[in-house]
Order: sequence, then C-alpha cells, then structure tokens
Amino acid sequence: MAQGSSPKPLIGVDIGGTKVAVGVVDANGTILHHLRRPMVASGEPEAALKAVSDAINALSAETSGAAASAGTIQSIGICAPGPLDPTTGVVINPPNLPCWRDFPLVARVIDLYRIPVKLDNDANAAALAETRWGAARGYRHVFYATVGTGIGTGIVLDGRIYHGHTGAAGEGGHVSIDYRGPLCSCGKRGCIEALAAGPAIAIRARAKLNADPTRSSALLDLAHGKVDAVTSEMVGKAHAAGDALAREILLETGELFSAWLGNIVDLLDPDVIVIGGGVAAVLKPFFDEIKNRLPGWCVNPRANEIPLLMAHYGGDAGIAGGAALCS
Amino acid sequence: MAQGSSPKPLIGVDIGGTKVAVGVVDANGTILHHLRRPMVASGEPEAALKAVSDAINALSAETSGAAASAGTIQSIGICAPGPLDPTTGVVINPPNLPCWRDFPLVARVIDLYRIPVKLDNDANAAALAETRWGAARGYRHVFYATVGTGIGTGIVLDGRIYHGHTGAAGEGGHVSIDYRGPLCSCGKRGCIEALAAGPAIAIRARAKLNADPTRSSALLDLAHGKVDAVTSEMVGKAHAAGDALAREILLETGELFSAWLGNIVDLLDPDVIVIGGGVAAVLKPFFDEIKNRLPGWCVNPRANEIPLLMAHYGGDAGIAGGAALCS
Repeated sequence: MAQGSSPKPLIGVDIGGTKVAVGVVDANGTILHHLRRPMVASGEPEAALKAVSDAINALSAETSGAAASAGTIQSIGICAPGPLDPTTGVVINPPNLPCWRDFPLVARVIDLYRIPVKLDNDANAAALAETRWGAARGYRHVFYATVGTGIGTGIVLDGRIYHGHTGAAGEGGHVSIDYRGPLCSCGKRGCIEALAAGPAIAIRARAKLNADPTRSSALLDLAHGKVDAVTSEMVGKAHAAGDALAREILLETGELFSAWLGNIVDLLDPDVIVIGGGVAAVLKPFFDEIKNRLPGWCVNPRANEIPLLMAHYGGDAGIAGGAALCS
Repeated sequence: MAQGSSPKPLIGVDIGGTKVAVGVVDANGTILHHLRRPMVASGEPEAALKAVSDAINALSAETSGAAASAGTIQSIGICAPGPLDPTTGVVINPPNLPCWRDFPLVARVIDLYRIPVKLDNDANAAALAETRWGAARGYRHVFYATVGTGIGTGIVLDGRIYHGHTGAAGEGGHVSIDYRGPLCSCGKRGCIEALAAGPAIAIRARAKLNADPTRSSALLDLAHGKVDAVTSEMVGKAHAAGDALAREILLETGELFSAWLGNIVDLLDPDVIVIGGGVAAVLKPFFDEIKNRLPGWCVNPRANEIPLLMAHYGGDAGIAGGAALCS
C-alpha cells in the first residue's frame, strides 16, 4: 500500500446458528464497531440471506458517514460453520444452518453489494485473524484451536489458510487419540473434541462426583448440589477457588491436550499454537502444564520451543476472522 | 528446460545404518545404474563420510564416459535417517548413524565435489520421488508412508516437501491413535508405528497363536512351528495361501491404518495417499478394505474420493528420493 494512503476498513461477518454478528475492522485488526442480529437458521434460504444482509445494512447505517457506509465498504469477509467450500463460496450443509444446502452464499452477497466477498469456516478465519493481528502475529506456521462445545481448528502455513485438496483440511478437533474411545458427534471414536471440549470436561466432572458422593467439592456448591448441572465453566470457577477435584479434572484434560498437540506437532511442526474459544479461559491456568508435557508426546526434538498462547480474540473472533479473509 | 536440451542425470544417495546405495537417475525418474557399498555407521565421522564418497566415486567410475562421470554430475541428492536439518544440511543424531552427531554432511560433500548437494530424510525424499515420477505424479497434496520395521511418512504440498518450522514435520508414523496404548520406541504411546508396522503385525500374530495353541495356521508351518519366529512377511505369505488367522490379523491392521489415515485426512486433506516400504506388499491385498473404511474415520465428506496407491519405488526409493531432491 502506498505510504500515506488510508486503508479502508473491512467488514467481518460471523454467521452462527442463532446470530449474525457484523463488525467494522481496521487495518490493524481493531474492531471499530459491531452489532448482532438474530439469524434465521432453520427457515427459507432467502430469509436467512436477508438476515445477513439486514445485519450488514444495519451496520452500514449505524456507521453512516463513517468508514463503513455503503459506498466505502471495500470488501466483506464471512465466516460460517462448515462444511463449506471456500473456493466456490458455497455453503454445503452445516448441521446448525439447515436453511442452506449447497447455497452459493458468496455469489449472492456479491450480487447484493457488488464488492469482493470471501467465505471460510469459523476456525480457519479465526486462525488467520490471530496470525494477521493477534497472538500469532509474526509467526509463520500457525496451529489454532477454538475450544468450546466443540473443538475447531485452523492451520495457517506461510501466512495463508491451508485448505487441502477439497477445502476440508484443518479439522484437528476430529483427530482421534483413542480409536476405541468415546463416540464423537461426528461418528468417529476418541476425537479430542469428544474427550476434552467443554461437554467432555463436564461429563468427566459429573462422573467423578457420582463415583464418590462423599467427596466434597466446590463444584457441587456451584451446581446447587445437582451433579447433572455441572458445566465446564463451573470446573474452571471451582479450580480458581482452589478446588482439588476441579484441578484433577483439568490436569487430566491438559494431558489429553498434550497428547493431541503432540500429534499435531509431529505432523505439522508449527512455530506457534494458539488456543481460543469459550473454554480457553478454563484451560489457561494449565497452559504451562500442557506445554511442559508436550515434548513427552512428540518426536520433534524442539517441541519444547513452541509457544502455546492464549488467543487475542474472544467472542469477536468471528468478526475479526471474517475481516482477516479480506486482508 | 529448453526443448532439445538433454538434461544431465541426477545422483541419488541413500544412506542407511548398514549400506550406502547410490544411483544415476534420469529426468523421468528412471534409475539407470546403481550400486551399494557398506556403510561405516558406528565409527569415526570421517570414515563414514569416506564410505559415502567411495560409493559415489565407484558409481562414477562404473559409469565413466556415461552420464555420471565426475565432470558431468550436476548435483547430488542424499537421503538419510532423521533427525537432520534439510535447510542447513546437518545430520543431527540419527539412532542408527551414531557416527554423525551434528555433522555438516552437505557442506562436506560440497567440499568434495563442488556441485550442489541436497539432504532430506528418507520418507520425505521418497514422498517427493513418488510425486515427481511415481504413483503420485500429477497430484498436488501428497501423503506418503513407508511401512517397514517403522513407519516413516512425508508430506508434499503443492509439489514441495512440507518441512514445518524446524524441519521436523511429517512424522506421521508417530501420530498416536491410542494414547494409553502400547509404548512406541519413540517414547510415546499408541503411535501407528507401534500398532501396525512390521514388528507390531508379528507381535499380534504371535499373541494370537499363543492365545490358542490348538488353532492351526499356515503361519506355524512357515515359522517351522516356532511362534517366536513369526514375522510380518510370513503373515503376508500365509494370507496369500488363504490362511484365516493371517487374514484376521491383517484386517485388524487395516482398521488401524484406516483410523490413522482418518486423522491424516482430517488434518491435511490430501488428494492422494501412497504406501510404500517393505511391508506394503503384505498390506496391499487390504488397500480396498482400508479405503472403504476410511470415510468412517473422517469428517471429510469426500474422503471416499482419495486414492490409496501402492508406491512406484520399492527398495530403490531412497536413490530415487535423493535424486528427486535435486530435480
């Protein structure tokens, strides 16, 4: 970019099963303005598209005269749940967006706004945002994982999202480390998502509480005595309050992450690992533990050098990710 | 290359724990001439280097006046057991080459011959040879595995070996699918190498024979009645002769390969998988089975489209691999 020119802000759109979040993002990855609208995920394809364009239009209106008004939007980057095809811009059949089956989202949004539009899945886009502007800035080969109710991952190689042959690469959450282990929602067994995402942490906590009803734990207080109400967030809170059971659960979870990341490192040899998502804060106190155990799960002799970092973006990772696709 | 020009042949050097194999390889990947010399793997670094240069010199002498005579060698590509640094050309500390510790092999061979010299590990180099000239010719993102006493793998992305940050990427043989499983020689548990390479196949066969001494099997005949003498090659032979136990063992092995390749596909989304190495022939009758089960071990909806191919190169993969590094 020529010195002195003022780069136009980017529009990032984050489509989920229940909401559309849109934001204006500057060239440094700062989210200048954002808003949320409900998503119409289970209705007609056109109604769902309208929910997205309404959100973009509302953002444009709110920031009218400012950087993002209709005439000054330079491009729109959209992230959505997969499977989707980032090359053709077609949303294939995401379980939580039943409105769209083989829907040419990019072509339709281009029709509406007549500007460049990009599409990728949430985790890939967030991985790119972390690389451009976030925790992985300055790194070359980045492995990003967002840990929440599932585990989504994205691979950035030489600064670009690695898509593989069909656009489906980077599904690290479904790397199995226990081929005879618990069934994952995907149908495979022993995926790290089935072993260590939020619901798996909660399941392990409940099992431990049920196995020894005499054991006292802050978890029971947080769940008002109802074992079945225990969540991964409560495990994090209980650990923060010094609870031994919560620590035990999260140490076990950390070991599973080390074993899984060992596989990733031995295949991909990244120069940084970034963890984000809603459950990342629960795991954060165990990052050192995960990192210390990682070399035991790698043949890579330099695994100890790989930083394990907390993501820069939180709930706004989708907006930043969408914008990063246009950057 | 300009039409009508005659490309000079390449020299491929394959260094192992017991031998140095060198060959002249033409621009189509055909091995025109090759020979073997003993390797001095446990002695002085200089003696080991001399074993390598003796082999190259012997090849030059044998082909003197032909393409590979000293003056016409254009470059030398060397593959060796890892760990090594393909960027600096330094052999780090391979277990079966105790002669070399942080040995600047590329620099030393350049000193001797004053031509370009490349170095990579066996599996990476063989993956490249398969991509340039072999089973994976015309494919873009290639996953290659050589199955023998261990499992080495190489990743080729966009036609180039993927090395990762430290040069240690592509160690797919140490991707664990059973984090509480059998100990691998690398120290991790449940690596596919520990579960399904040649020795693991033999161990499973012996266990089944010991578990039911009344069971008849062609395996026992092949091993002259000595259960402990059963090898993976015998399992392959017994299966070829219609033995039910051998089939059972190889079906189980195939399922492990499917689970493992599912992880690879979900991370890397290659457009082809190539299997080579000494045990590949034993597995070959089960390639269809492995491929048919692969989609059950992948979230990638197009996993069924990925060809699973037998490697083009056999025992000469190292020579071809070395040459491919210079191509």
